[in-house]
Amino acid sequence: MVIDGFRFAGLSAGIKGKGHKDLALICSDSPLSAAGVFTTNKIKAAPVLIDMERLKKGTARAVIVNSGNANACNGDAGIEDAVKTSEMTADELNIGTDEVLVSSTGVIGQRLPVDKIGAALPDLARSLNSESINDFAEAIMTTDSFPKVCFASKEAEGGKITVAGVAKGAGMIAPNMATLLAFILTDASIEPELLGKALKYSVTESFNCITVDGDMSTNDTVIALASGKSGVKIAEESISYGSFLGLMKEVMIKLAKMIVKDGEGATKLIEIRVKGALSAEEAKRAALTIANSSLVKTAFYGEDANWGRIAASLGGAGIEISENRLDLYFDEVQLVSGGLHKGPEAENKASEIMKKDELALTVDLNIGTHHATVWTCDLTHDYIRINAEYRS
Amino acid sequence: MVIDGFRFAGLSAGIKGKGHKDLALICSDSPLSAAGVFTTNKIKAAPVLIDMERLKKGTARAVIVNSGNANACNGDAGIEDAVKTSEMTADELNIGTDEVLVSSTGVIGQRLPVDKIGAALPDLARSLNSESINDFAEAIMTTDSFPKVCFASKEAEGGKITVAGVAKGAGMIAPNMATLLAFILTDASIEPELLGKALKYSVTESFNCITVDGDMSTNDTVIALASGKSGVKIAEESISYGSFLGLMKEVMIKLAKMIVKDGEGATKLIEIRVKGALSAEEAKRAALTIANSSLVKTAFYGEDANWGRIAASLGGAGIEISENRLDLYFDEVQLVSGGLHKGPEAENKASEIMKKDELALTVDLNIGTHHATVWTCDLTHDYIRINAEYRS
Repeated sequence: MVIDGFRFAGLSAGIKGKGHKDLALICSDSPLSAAGVFTTNKIKAAPVLIDMERLKKGTARAVIVNSGNANACNGDAGIEDAVKTSEMTADELNIGTDEVLVSSTGVIGQRLPVDKIGAALPDLARSLNSESINDFAEAIMTTDSFPKVCFASKEAEGGKITVAGVAKGAGMIAPNMATLLAFILTDASIEPELLGKALKYSVTESFNCITVDGDMSTNDTVIALASGKSGVKIAEESISYGSFLGLMKEVMIKLAKMIVKDGEGATKLIEIRVKGALSAEEAKRAALTIANSSLVKTAFYGEDANWGRIAASLGGAGIEISENRLDLYFDEVQLVSGGLHKGPEAENKASEIMKKDELALTVDLNIGTHHATVWTCDLTHDYIRINAEYRS
Repeated sequence: MVIDGFRFAGLSAGIKGKGHKDLALICSDSPLSAAGVFTTNKIKAAPVLIDMERLKKGTARAVIVNSGNANACNGDAGIEDAVKTSEMTADELNIGTDEVLVSSTGVIGQRLPVDKIGAALPDLARSLNSESINDFAEAIMTTDSFPKVCFASKEAEGGKITVAGVAKGAGMIAPNMATLLAFILTDASIEPELLGKALKYSVTESFNCITVDGDMSTNDTVIALASGKSGVKIAEESISYGSFLGLMKEVMIKLAKMIVKDGEGATKLIEIRVKGALSAEEAKRAALTIANSSLVKTAFYGEDANWGRIAASLGGAGIEISENRLDLYFDEVQLVSGGLHKGPEAENKASEIMKKDELALTVDLNIGTHHATVWTCDLTHDYIRINAEYRS
């Protein structure tokens, strides 16, 4: 699949070793409308600080991304390395340094090997191709087990528009800005400010609704780039804006669910819906508390419909609940009614649901009208293996 | 070891099966001064609700405890079962029902087998003995791998006083009220109100400073009982009160550390100290955020001095930090100075420290004067195994 106005490349620069792809580039022949949403972690990686600054002008031409090294916690030297990377990229592409965005993901606290990046840049630029989005997706992976790419198109007022997304995730997927890196591309024509608004809304509805281990990265970055090549102009409060927002949200929710499904060691994708809460905030807090509970997540791994752990987690969420109004469902099977277990038949049916790869847990608090949905995965032996051995 | 005024018993009533001890009793021949601290979970187990009510009068004679069943989320039937258990115990001991406290720990959402408890009570009462505290400690265990008992004595004004503690913990050890069940006994003479005050303070300094998996139980209970048999009267703001408080805190910190050490699947006890914070609350929040991070806990399991995960976790704690003032130590080895890694030699030394069974991580924020200490354990394959298989 291609998206008009963008070319991609991804290859091995020797940062990760073993010939794994680890350097990736997105490039456009003309200036792009650009916006970003970044980690709220107090400790931000060098490339995040640079992109936040460069995106103030709302335009960009290229994004250079490396995996294998986060370039975080490196002080001033980290900033210099990131700037140097963008300078080398700008030279290679013959564009301005401030038109280049930089992203890094991987191990924290080690200097970025800029020499290796510099040596690989000519090949990387030469291999830029409108059909190479999968190479790009592969080169930004860290502990991901599959590349994450998603396309969606729609006829809008004035013609067809396309939104494409590429993301990498896996571990450290926190309730805020759940992916390490995501790049959302469109051929629609949209001003940076409106693009940023659409991006912020879509992040809230997608990446901020997923959680793998509750940790928050220093590098979380979502960048949106618009080429305008479709010729379809997206104006605020237009029908086209509605179409565009729908596409963007669709692509980002799909990417978010791919990230959870590929959560470190995960074997199940679990949708957690909290209904009947007193406020939207309480519904989301409850859903995220359940989604982040190690005890609940290991019970899902054990395929055990252990509703007691869900109830205990809910009770500790700091939200208003009434125990004797609580209903609980696994998919369509009701296991708990008015705070009480429905008996062995319901338990057997729920146990069957627990064996599925994808399932939904619905908690109805029955005390209000607000709801929230988040996605999480189970906590498994492989999560421990991957994370205990990560640096060694 | 014995503590004047208390007798203990523990045996198998067939609640857990396989002949494991699961029913326990503490009894006194005369009324005890009594106080309790309970879970803040919105969903409270039936015995917690009953004890909260009965402790209002500040006195008790006996505590009946079962493991294998939490008697939580059972609605009115759960309350009836807990009341029935206390009635049967009172009959057997020939004391008033409202002099009996009840505690339960184990699986949530299943009816308490009161018949089995009733059938076992005569044997339990017959076996009451001042030297049987270890039988009691064994019978309250769930996933604990060893019984937890601690004694401490001190010469106070007027004579020697002793504080003894028995606890069970392992999983679901949350930042608030970190143990499932703990019983703190003393032969000092102290009014219920002052006993409650001392208990509350000691809980803050001990059980509320430990975390295994960040979950909060429906059953968390710490009960303090004073027999007065030492004849030493503890008055508020006296030197004796200082001695008593010191003993109580010592016993409870020891129990708290035993609980972390016995955390489900844990192989390491890690003391996390945060210094130089802007406030005590921020110090404690930072310490608990690090202590609850799955990524940090798996890194400890992997014996990897992965300070990047610690920094990332700290940055997400929602407290004030300044990256370039951050110092980090493993025991006495400084790995990070002013936010930067100190190099391979420090890394090698820190890696050696990581191999220890007990170690301390010190984070100095260098922006304020407040500090906090919490204890946690590593996150291991066995945690997953234990919790994925718990009910099956």
